[in-house]
Amino acid sequence: MILILKADTTKSDIADLKNRLEARGLRPVIMEGAEKVAVGIIGETRSHLPADQIQALPYVETIRRVSDPYKLANRVFHPEDTVVDAGGALTGGGNFSLMAGPCSIESREQIVEVAKAVKAAGATMLRGGAFKPRTSPYDFQGLRGEGLKLMLEAKRETGLPIVTEIMSIDHLPLFEDVDMIQVGARSMQNFEMLKELGKTKKPILLKRGLSATIKELLMAAEYIMASGNDQIVLCERGIRTYETATRNTLDLSAIAVLHERTHLPVVIDPSHATGVARYVPSMAAAAAAAGCDGLMIEVHNNPAAALCDGPQSITPDEFVKVVRTVKAVRAAVSSANAIQAKPISVEQVIRACAS
Amino acid sequence: MILILKADTTKSDIADLKNRLEARGLRPVIMEGAEKVAVGIIGETRSHLPADQIQALPYVETIRRVSDPYKLANRVFHPEDTVVDAGGALTGGGNFSLMAGPCSIESREQIVEVAKAVKAAGATMLRGGAFKPRTSPYDFQGLRGEGLKLMLEAKRETGLPIVTEIMSIDHLPLFEDVDMIQVGARSMQNFEMLKELGKTKKPILLKRGLSATIKELLMAAEYIMASGNDQIVLCERGIRTYETATRNTLDLSAIAVLHERTHLPVVIDPSHATGVARYVPSMAAAAAAAGCDGLMIEVHNNPAAALCDGPQSITPDEFVKVVRTVKAVRAAVSSANAIQAKPISVEQVIRACAS
Amino acid sequence: MILILKADTTKSDIADLKNRLEARGLRPVIMEGAEKVAVGIIGETRSHLPADQIQALPYVETIRRVSDPYKLANRVFHPEDTVVDAGGALTGGGNFSLMAGPCSIESREQIVEVAKAVKAAGATMLRGGAFKPRTSPYDFQGLRGEGLKLMLEAKRETGLPIVTEIMSIDHLPLFEDVDMIQVGARSMQNFEMLKELGKTKKPILLKRGLSATIKELLMAAEYIMASGNDQIVLCERGIRTYETATRNTLDLSAIAVLHERTHLPVVIDPSHATGVARYVPSMAAAAAAAGCDGLMIEVHNNPAAALCDGPQSITPDEFVKVVRTVKAVRAAVSSANAIQAKPISVEQVIRACAS
Amino acid sequence: MILILKADTTKSDIADLKNRLEARGLRPVIMEGAEKVAVGIIGETRSHLPADQIQALPYVETIRRVSDPYKLANRVFHPEDTVVDAGGALTGGGNFSLMAGPCSIESREQIVEVAKAVKAAGATMLRGGAFKPRTSPYDFQGLRGEGLKLMLEAKRETGLPIVTEIMSIDHLPLFEDVDMIQVGARSMQNFEMLKELGKTKKPILLKRGLSATIKELLMAAEYIMASGNDQIVLCERGIRTYETATRNTLDLSAIAVLHERTHLPVVIDPSHATGVARYVPSMAAAAAAAGCDGLMIEVHNNPAAALCDGPQSITPDEFVKVVRTVKAVRAAVSSANAIQAKPISVEQVIRACAS
Repeated sequence: MILILKADTTKSDIADLKNRLEARGLRPVIMEGAEKVAVGIIGETRSHLPADQIQALPYVETIRRVSDPYKLANRVFHPEDTVVDAGGALTGGGNFSLMAGPCSIESREQIVEVAKAVKAAGATMLRGGAFKPRTSPYDFQGLRGEGLKLMLEAKRETGLPIVTEIMSIDHLPLFEDVDMIQVGARSMQNFEMLKELGKTKKPILLKRGLSATIKELLMAAEYIMASGNDQIVLCERGIRTYETATRNTLDLSAIAVLHERTHLPVVIDPSHATGVARYVPSMAAAAAAAGCDGLMIEVHNNPAAALCDGPQSITPDEFVKVVRTVKAVRAAVSSANAIQAKPISVEQVIRACAS
Repeated sequence: MILILKADTTKSDIADLKNRLEARGLRPVIMEGAEKVAVGIIGETRSHLPADQIQALPYVETIRRVSDPYKLANRVFHPEDTVVDAGGALTGGGNFSLMAGPCSIESREQIVEVAKAVKAAGATMLRGGAFKPRTSPYDFQGLRGEGLKLMLEAKRETGLPIVTEIMSIDHLPLFEDVDMIQVGARSMQNFEMLKELGKTKKPILLKRGLSATIKELLMAAEYIMASGNDQIVLCERGIRTYETATRNTLDLSAIAVLHERTHLPVVIDPSHATGVARYVPSMAAAAAAAGCDGLMIEVHNNPAAALCDGPQSITPDEFVKVVRTVKAVRAAVSSANAIQAKPISVEQVIRACAS
Repeated sequence: MILILKADTTKSDIADLKNRLEARGLRPVIMEGAEKVAVGIIGETRSHLPADQIQALPYVETIRRVSDPYKLANRVFHPEDTVVDAGGALTGGGNFSLMAGPCSIESREQIVEVAKAVKAAGATMLRGGAFKPRTSPYDFQGLRGEGLKLMLEAKRETGLPIVTEIMSIDHLPLFEDVDMIQVGARSMQNFEMLKELGKTKKPILLKRGLSATIKELLMAAEYIMASGNDQIVLCERGIRTYETATRNTLDLSAIAVLHERTHLPVVIDPSHATGVARYVPSMAAAAAAAGCDGLMIEVHNNPAAALCDGPQSITPDEFVKVVRTVKAVRAAVSSANAIQAKPISVEQVIRACAS
Repeated sequence: MILILKADTTKSDIADLKNRLEARGLRPVIMEGAEKVAVGIIGETRSHLPADQIQALPYVETIRRVSDPYKLANRVFHPEDTVVDAGGALTGGGNFSLMAGPCSIESREQIVEVAKAVKAAGATMLRGGAFKPRTSPYDFQGLRGEGLKLMLEAKRETGLPIVTEIMSIDHLPLFEDVDMIQVGARSMQNFEMLKELGKTKKPILLKRGLSATIKELLMAAEYIMASGNDQIVLCERGIRTYETATRNTLDLSAIAVLHERTHLPVVIDPSHATGVARYVPSMAAAAAAAGCDGLMIEVHNNPAAALCDGPQSITPDEFVKVVRTVKAVRAAVSSANAIQAKPISVEQVIRACAS
């Protein structure tokens, strides 16, 4: 429930309202706009807060209910950025994560070598696929449990926290030492799995489905949150369109839309989005300029020999340049002050109620 | 026609080849790759260059024909960036253009005021619609001829070159003093109009159709070029997808794809792409980071009262910030050297032949 | 304006209302629903009909305004099907048209031979392209004016009315003896041309744009109608999606949606939609079963040698079978009575007001 | 492996080839075209059939390998239609199935009442959702295990075999008495689940993903088949496009494409495709005319009160009419003989090798 207060509401009115709400076990979120103040109320408002009593308060102008179907993921009820902590690697709230590594784990040598290279270049997390969702049953399906073990070795050798994909909730016990569990694009609406992941306390990297709307992505996050886990990083990785020059179409405007609607951090994967290694550097720079909270990039020490997605993998040398550029762009945007962390606005609240 | 030369080809071999080609009235374009040298041949190769004679030269490995259907727009035959000069405002080859102004021209006061504001902020061209393609016949259709006159007044007052849309080739005489003629998204495949515009010497801003592929955009440019006009700026302005959070989906990867395939400059229009003013600044920054050659941005002195597309127009004050950020991002990318002007590569030539 | 009458309204109430409206120069359209009666009012209601006086009538329950932006094309204001007459060939209101012929006119022999063959098979109109919109400037552009002359010869020889595409309003004088002018998918939003076509009295075949919504198609028709021409046949010819197995995706549900929203007839073009001759027969049968008002099918006497779109052209022999199947399907659907001509319903009116 | 035989191959040559192949444990599939004969060879050709020995046979023109990535689902290796038997209800090979029932099972009364009604109308299977994939975690998630029990009661009461969706492989034990297990659109690429379903002998209804290509649908079927289960019915249920007048866009051309490429039966779900009950009858008729092997239709005894997808459910009375029309259309198409069961053609084989 959202209250819009009258224009002449005073500080003591607000204090009064706060007391009344807290006395009923509700949490008020005060949002001061240019002209008006809005108050989001978190908790069981339907049963604990008779609308007529609230409406009767002299400083309340209108009562609205948020029509966005995502509640826990909604920035209206949680104005501050969520910071996700995966084994010490932070994402969100000004913390930028650089997740890098091969599409699939192929051997101990490969994953350790790439892990060392990306760490030296500035990566904050190691990515790599053990369980691989492949379009064809005849394609390499990943090293599976064995691959996870190799990845954990790479973690021990480099200290990099790891992120890797889960394809079935039955595999969850294998993910105990994984720092962040990835839900792939094809699993974004595997609701039964989302519910189970919500019961863990593991950070989740939730990838947008190939043709998922932004709203559906938020609803998938809501499934996880509704089960009790709010450590979620959203990931845009390209959507399916009619264009064939790139594997998918990277929807960078999703960054701005998501930052407005949710407090969850947003990471961009330019590798899967473009499917072409030589397009990755400019898209990584663009994503950074658009204000994303991190990047997930495929890096392989020998792309031509990769067992999976070689054409979209960059080399460790190229990754060094990408990191340098991304850092420069972030510094430039920050100093030019164009994309500032905005507190939630009353206008935003009204949009959430009306949409 | 493209020749791939043998690995042990010497400089004097290349000189010999150059002489032979020029003697037949053909222009060779030498492209030195890491391992091999490719030579693009511009001119009437079919009639003037017997393939068997060429194949017989000791240093020629293979002869290929470019399979891309765009020839004049193809970077393979024109490795250097094209620079478009519209009344002194340059786009391409390192020159960045900032086209700004209202969606539609509404009055003398409005267009002159916006023109002065955007010029002060750093705009290099004034945009504004006189002829407006509107989905509904009952919506404001623009001031048409009268609007063009007002725009020319704004040009005189500020010195800014102007760019404005043409909707019918019959209106061409009215565009005599217009510096750059815009072909809108809905007209991208108005082939009869493209042919006529090809006969003028006017710079053309060619917008990508709502569901045009990158290849179709290049073929539309090819129509103009085949009629004799090579002063073309391509403009990505969002493509139609299933996502409804934004008006269209801005396809920023088109910048990298187009820069690879063509020598024509690429400008981004984040206003029409997102349809939401508050998403424009981050998309402008992203486009700059991705290496575009310019931006086209809707600026209105009073968006709430705009007769057309108010929700996507930013104010002059916001435009000042956008320009500041874009410049900072461009400087950062340039110094980090991530997106360097690459000469055409042999690999690129081979792709153009194979695709 | 729409009036919803109270449940107990009598016939004499309705007569009274009719008199009052006609006395003010307005035309009432009575729509009797299962439970209520709605009355559409055509004419200048804003100036001629004070809302308060109407609301005061004892049998008026509510007053609504139609929110659909298409007014003249809207079935709410024109419940009866429009029948388009092109040189005697009727489309709509139970009349089924079969437009058949080659993609492009190639020679006198070709067009006359195909015309005779399709007439013998049951075609009601001859289609053929003289002006051809081609993606590449280097592809065959049609015989243009010369092609039109050949088509008129085929008309004289067979008596079949003809339909052919216009690409520029400047060519209009050449279309004087053409029975139906086709506006191609790429021209659907060539608004200046639509306005001019609205000033003619020629039947227009308006093809849906590659990525046009149904609403945009109706708005394009509205452009023509607002200029004075209501002889319009709408044509669905496939929309652009991510699927590559067919050239486009044929949207047959558009038939049901359009029949509900507009009184204009709807024709289906399975040839351009699928791009594959062997898929045309089943899609033609499906379109007929879905209740379309006609079909436009590419027929060529020698598809393998066609200068344009050979792969999607069927032979005259195959066309004979298509016609036989289409007729059988139409008869079956008609006798099973499943898709009956429904009068406009009150529910439909309410939807048009709410959407 | 595919052999194309020389034009002058005799019957005794073919008999000779057959003997040679069978002697090596391989199964030849003879496909006689208009001009040539092709022979598909099923079995371990790589190890058991030296290409040079085959090429040396005097009547062999060329050897090709099928490039389509789906092998078991490919019609080239299995020319005859597969017939799926789910508790006695047959689909494919001329057998038409009518699966009808509510979106979700809500109560014993509801499911039994609907089951009786659809059986009386001609349904061959009862559909109904126990586990419901819903976009929002706050929407009704189905009666789950309890719902399955109610559905089995309806089966006992009516004798109708049942089809219902599985959302997690962990629920498989609950599906023991289910006649056909549905894999929903969102699970089409839940590869781990597909593999497990491949190990059962249960008939599977595999729905096309919201943005899955036809090829991806076939690859998903291949996952199931590669694990040992070939009892698969494919279901087209609308794809995601930019059009908003319908929930999805029904891709009826998929019927023709799938029938060409695979031997698996194809069923159409017009309810989910359109999302609008009043568009279902015409799309059902169209699907039947296009040659589908069955329909899946949502029928609810009180759509307005349905807990899920009421707007797309038709009533039992409307279903009666749909069945009548569908039967009439199928009879009409069959007697007009336009869509005949074609044996596999040599041309088709060549396409499968080249694509």
